[in-house]
Parts: sequence; C-alpha cells; structure tokens
Amino acid sequence: MEAIDEQAFVEKTLATRRAFEGRAVVVDVLDIAMPDGRRTTREVMRHRGAVCILCQLPDGRYLLVHQYRKAVERTLLEVVAGCMEPGEKPEEAALRETREESGYEVDRLTYLGSTLPSPGYCDEVHYHFHALLKPMPLAQQLDTDENLKPVLLAAEEIDRAIDDGTLDDGKSVILWSLWQRRLARQG
Amino acid sequence: MEAIDEQAFVEKTLATRRAFEGRAVVVDVLDIAMPDGRRTTREVMRHRGAVCILCQLPDGRYLLVHQYRKAVERTLLEVVAGCMEPGEKPEEAALRETREESGYEVDRLTYLGSTLPSPGYCDEVHYHFHALLKPMPLAQQLDTDENLKPVLLAAEEIDRAIDDGTLDDGKSVILWSLWQRRLARQG
Repeated sequence: MEAIDEQAFVEKTLATRRAFEGRAVVVDVLDIAMPDGRRTTREVMRHRGAVCILCQLPDGRYLLVHQYRKAVERTLLEVVAGCMEPGEKPEEAALRETREESGYEVDRLTYLGSTLPSPGYCDEVHYHFHALLKPMPLAQQLDTDENLKPVLLAAEEIDRAIDDGTLDDGKSVILWSLWQRRLARQG
Repeated sequence: MEAIDEQAFVEKTLATRRAFEGRAVVVDVLDIAMPDGRRTTREVMRHRGAVCILCQLPDGRYLLVHQYRKAVERTLLEVVAGCMEPGEKPEEAALRETREESGYEVDRLTYLGSTLPSPGYCDEVHYHFHALLKPMPLAQQLDTDENLKPVLLAAEEIDRAIDDGTLDDGKSVILWSLWQRRLARQG
C-alpha cells in the first residue's frame, strides 16, 4: 500500500476561537488554509479521550452494560466505557471504569489498539481493552449522573446482537471486532 | 439475552437550549430528570447523519480514501463517507458520495446496517453500505473544502492496516467488520 503523503494534505491553522465550552462538549472554530491556499473554517470538538473495555468473567461470559443515552433517546447495549480524567493514562482509566461500572476488579488487562470515532469533527480517541475480571464482584461505584446496568452475555449472543442490529453502539462493534481478530491471530 | 427494560432508564427532558450553532456542529443543552428523579444536564450534539460506503471494483480491489482531518491533525485512511443532505435518504446519499469522492458510479449497493459513533454526546447515525462499482471511472466531484485522494487496496492490505493500527478510523473498522461478517454468513 502506498504510504500516506502527509505534507500534500496538511491544513495550516491561521486562527483558533473557543466557540462553546460546556461541561462535556467543547468546540473550537479554526480558520485554516488548505494545501492549495483556499481558506475555510473547521469546527472541532475537543475531547479528553475515552477507554472501552470488553470485560470477561473467568467462566467465559462477557459483561456489557445497558445504558440510557439521552443523545439518541435509547437504552443501548454497550461495552464498559468512560472518559479519561485529566492526567490519567488509558490503562488507569480502564481499571477505574471497569471497577466503577461492573463492580468487578480486573485480573488481566490487554490493550487492543485505538480508534477515532468521529475524526471529521472531533479529536476524541478511543482506547480499546479486553479485561479478564476477578470472579468475585464488589459493588458498582457509578458517577452520580450515570444511568446503567451490567448484563452478562455469551459470545454467541453478542454475535447475534451485532448481526440483528440490537448491538449498534459503534465503539462496542469495533472492540468486539478487535478482540475477535486478536483471538484469530492467536490461533 | 434479557430484553432491555427501556422504561427503567428513560430520562425526561425538562428544558432544551440551543447552546451553539456552527456550520457543521450544533449543540443543545438539555435539563433532564433521571429515573430516580435526580436532575442533571446533558449536552447533545445534533448531526444529520452520515453514510459510509465500502467501495469495491469488479477486479476485487477496494477503493478507500486518504483524507486530511483537521480535528486530529492527521491524514487518515478511511472508507468513502459523507454527511447526508437535508431530506436525503441514506441510499441516495451513498450513491452521491460514492460518485463524488471516488469518481465511479455504483453498480450494486448493499445495506449492511447502522451504528452510533458517539451516543454519549451526539445523535449521529452512521449508515453502512457496500458498493460494487462500475469499472469505468468518471471524475471526482469533491466539495470545495474536501481534501482527499482515492487509494486502491486488496483485502489483505486492509486487514494488515487494521491490525497494525494504520487504519484506525472508527467507521471504517466497523464497516470492514460488517462486510466480513456478511461474507462469512453467505458462506
């Protein structure tokens, strides 16, 4: 595959303005020059980044969550996930979010890679992990405005949910794919 | 798998305020009541939706694009994709975006499903398609501020790019997975 010729595409930032600063959503408007010199603007949402963790119990079942998402007015089936806190490394966030959302401690954490959910307008990075959980649950420690419930699923149920559209959360479909690819490579 | 008990999770909207309205990014702030009555706010980015098209030539090679993404200051390898226009159906957008970005007409379009890229803060839906292209290219008709170039890849090159992290655009990883799952189901 031909290498990406970065310099041919780079857009130079001429000015930046903080257009909106909410609790979770932050938007900058950039004046930019395209490679051929034409001027335009790019609206960029700033995001600290998030971790996505495919949790698995020693008996093989996977722990996902049902979580209400106001943005889409639906309760979704999703992997455990959450935004990183300031100064936090992805692995630290993964351990913390797993403990908080699932009520289990992590026995072994495997990093699977990172993806960009919406690079057209947002700088967010998703860091993907598999977590083998310790068998004894503690208790959930949800953020005060989180609205979710854990659910245990066999691999076949997750596959079926992707194929019939029940599982349509993007980061979850990606993480399941990365995990299946990892298992296939290991034999 | 136990069914999702939607009513247990629904958050009631008490008030909505348009907090930011840009060219591409629109943000509402909602005052909501959680199921247990606690009040909080949800910041929601409004998005018209986008189509993602895995383009394939009759000779088997896939057509993706190198596109500069200011939000992440990188040139990414991505599937052909674009936002839907007002009133446009996903299939119409898929045909239009393919013609504009690839320079080829579509011979056969296959719908593969939809996903939510960032349901934590955005209502965007991604509609995924496979497109078998007609063998003779016309010409690209890019939007005046699009900055991209088509590239032809074999399936093995796409797999390698996902596994080594070169292909880390979320919608592209999802669409490749949905296509592989479709091929596996067909035998």
